[in-house]
Amino acid sequence: MRIAHIGIAVKNAEVALQLYRDLGLEPDHTEVVESQKVKTVHIPIGDSSIELLESTSPEGVIARFIEKRGEGIHHIAIEVPNIEESLTRLKEEGYRLIDETPRRGAGNMLIAFIHPKSTNGVLLELCQRAD
Amino acid sequence: MRIAHIGIAVKNAEVALQLYRDLGLEPDHTEVVESQKVKTVHIPIGDSSIELLESTSPEGVIARFIEKRGEGIHHIAIEVPNIEESLTRLKEEGYRLIDETPRRGAGNMLIAFIHPKSTNGVLLELCQRAD
Repeated sequence: MRIAHIGIAVKNAEVALQLYRDLGLEPDHTEVVESQKVKTVHIPIGDSSIELLESTSPEGVIARFIEKRGEGIHHIAIEVPNIEESLTRLKEEGYRLIDETPRRGAGNMLIAFIHPKSTNGVLLELCQRAD
Repeated sequence: MRIAHIGIAVKNAEVALQLYRDLGLEPDHTEVVESQKVKTVHIPIGDSSIELLESTSPEGVIARFIEKRGEGIHHIAIEVPNIEESLTRLKEEGYRLIDETPRRGAGNMLIAFIHPKSTNGVLLELCQRAD
């Protein structure tokens, strides 16, 4: 298991990237996820990565997050060995799932979100490589 | 470089720990940092860790964070090869530093915080092993 990424909601990913460059990090790719109305800038670090999340629309989930809470950490993603098993376990234990079954996310991953009401305020994404 | 840890502000660390246990993770130690009025529960994951932060006093920084924003992600820590060099660089570039020089943190680390005003809303800790 590992922290797959930390997602950070920013107004402008190119501007926000400069901090990470100043720390000696470099992005390896940028991706637009149309369904989520988000552009992601992916910055590898150790066995994990930082994902800068910029909304591509004023109605996108990231734009609405920033409007409500300001820029900042939006979610963390944890890679698990078996996402179906993890979801079943969490459901049995009474956690509130946003995605009851895994869906296809960016970078060929199966992903599912757990509601922050169940996780001490942390929007938690579980993920597993799809292949 | 790596994400050294993600610090999560919680009301009760023992209660919050259950989620991570349900995902298959186990804490390896608990530490009380008197100067910060905080108890930390340290949960290793990959080359990083999750740190649950519980205030030991209603006046502690974590208690005040929770009062204002609710439970949730409090900060992220990035391990850098040379913390002095990183701080000098960031200061030259105009970032607002909370700690202008490194101080001793938990787990034999030198640490310094960067102000969220300079980092798109992310309370960022830089750290380096002291030995």
